[in-house]
Amino acid sequence: MIKSYLIILGCNSSLPTKNFHPTSQILYMRNNYFLIDCGEGTQVQLIKAKIKMNKINNIFISHLHGDHYFGIMGILSTYQLLGRKNKLNIYSPKGLKNIIYENLKWSKSKITYPLNFITLKSKKFKKIYKDENVNIYIIPLKHKIYTNGFLFKEKKKLKNLNIKNVKKIKEIKISDYLKIKKGKDFVKKNGEKISNSYLTIKKKNKLLSYAFCSDTSFKPKICKYLKNVDLLYHESTFLHEKKKLAYNRGHSTSIQAAKIAKLANVKKLLLGHYSCRFPNIGKFEKEAKKIFNNSETSKILKIYYI
Amino acid sequence: MIKSYLIILGCNSSLPTKNFHPTSQILYMRNNYFLIDCGEGTQVQLIKAKIKMNKINNIFISHLHGDHYFGIMGILSTYQLLGRKNKLNIYSPKGLKNIIYENLKWSKSKITYPLNFITLKSKKFKKIYKDENVNIYIIPLKHKIYTNGFLFKEKKKLKNLNIKNVKKIKEIKISDYLKIKKGKDFVKKNGEKISNSYLTIKKKNKLLSYAFCSDTSFKPKICKYLKNVDLLYHESTFLHEKKKLAYNRGHSTSIQAAKIAKLANVKKLLLGHYSCRFPNIGKFEKEAKKIFNNSETSKILKIYYI
Repeated sequence: MIKSYLIILGCNSSLPTKNFHPTSQILYMRNNYFLIDCGEGTQVQLIKAKIKMNKINNIFISHLHGDHYFGIMGILSTYQLLGRKNKLNIYSPKGLKNIIYENLKWSKSKITYPLNFITLKSKKFKKIYKDENVNIYIIPLKHKIYTNGFLFKEKKKLKNLNIKNVKKIKEIKISDYLKIKKGKDFVKKNGEKISNSYLTIKKKNKLLSYAFCSDTSFKPKICKYLKNVDLLYHESTFLHEKKKLAYNRGHSTSIQAAKIAKLANVKKLLLGHYSCRFPNIGKFEKEAKKIFNNSETSKILKIYYI
Repeated sequence: MIKSYLIILGCNSSLPTKNFHPTSQILYMRNNYFLIDCGEGTQVQLIKAKIKMNKINNIFISHLHGDHYFGIMGILSTYQLLGRKNKLNIYSPKGLKNIIYENLKWSKSKITYPLNFITLKSKKFKKIYKDENVNIYIIPLKHKIYTNGFLFKEKKKLKNLNIKNVKKIKEIKISDYLKIKKGKDFVKKNGEKISNSYLTIKKKNKLLSYAFCSDTSFKPKICKYLKNVDLLYHESTFLHEKKKLAYNRGHSTSIQAAKIAKLANVKKLLLGHYSCRFPNIGKFEKEAKKIFNNSETSKILKIYYI
């Protein structure tokens, strides 16, 4: 099984530069390609990252500031041109559907693949997605408009059968397999209990987690949702010398991002959403490391294994 | 005076590639920077072309297919962030204003600089813009939705005074200057006529013109509007082997673009809007040259002096 990983497609904030890539990320987790935010130019970044666009079935939009969603129309149009058939789910605050349909209306275009909008409106930590492998939660952030972070958690996998031992117990039928895979012991008709550990293979099965928190001002309350995550991406729009400006604009500094990482005891912190007023990105890392050593500045198209 | 020139910011058609730059161009003409179409990523291309965005006061959108306008929200937002004060005119088919305001509504954003929408709806060749230096006309094209080409024509400039000679005629007042600059002779009180050629400096003053025609299927009727233009950009989405497909999709082939150039007796033809199914762009030029020798494929960020 491929290990979960994150690819940063863009981590600039809103003002464009020559190499401007506003927020967008691909999280690969247990056979899912989750697209997180979708700034202008995301579809080209996906091509550069060699991600087959059609593998994305779920898009998560943190908030409706343009640098986090202006690329979505391009992606939806491209899917249409490529003849997409599979369903696409878009998790977003209210309004994105209206924006998309306003575009389609005036261009006399249609989306013929199934497009499913899930409107996020809760201001509480809440599960918004589950499949057999992954749970996803929204984390309420503090920004100028309604904004969510996202927490992605791998779920406990079904155990693998020790088929040699299973076969030894004649009473076990195929219809019993799922229960055993889920961890149950098997009880024979005569009452004898066969331990699950005998019937399954022991595997190291660490459950990985990733959290995305952007955009937000410093909000230590979120730490309880971020406890021990393997990788945290937290915005650090400003260096700490601009902490007042950061607060006024609903953003964080690198020191504040590092404090969140430390309080939540995460394994690794990725910084991003840098304001273009700071051309030396290295300073963000330097500042953050003072508080939380395993801090790193996001690099475009780099793969971060979780 | 700087000669008029065109910079191609993007000339791909709608399907993205690694170096995807959908349609957008900057025309510099007599102190104006006209932005023609605005596909996704245009603002970054402007930075790469070293065009100061704030110098653009007029944007022309040919039609509302995404590859011709998905970059406009990014530009408008950036203007807001940069504190733009000067008025921005947007010439576009009906609907773009609605799309823009739908975006602003949900992001709770405001545009505080003057934004003026000029809705294009005529299906006839028509003047839509004039200033003291330039006239601009729409050219009705033939596409899947309502689409205009644009014709940009330099206007006759005011003559420069031969100030030495002017001073010799004591009766001439400053208030007479404009008439003389416009080409009038001066008549003295005693009825003596002073020839305009004596009062002004002879200058070679060729009036340049540029025409943009994209997207369109083959429409020879437009040639009468394109007669003798110095530079024509005409879409050539397909090679001629796909002329049936071109027709069905509302597009042209390289041969058809060249036929238009020849019929209209233009000076130079620029091809563009290539479908990504043809990785060898050189073939477009080769085909077009058979019909019209001064044909060239558009190259990103190249400056074409008119």
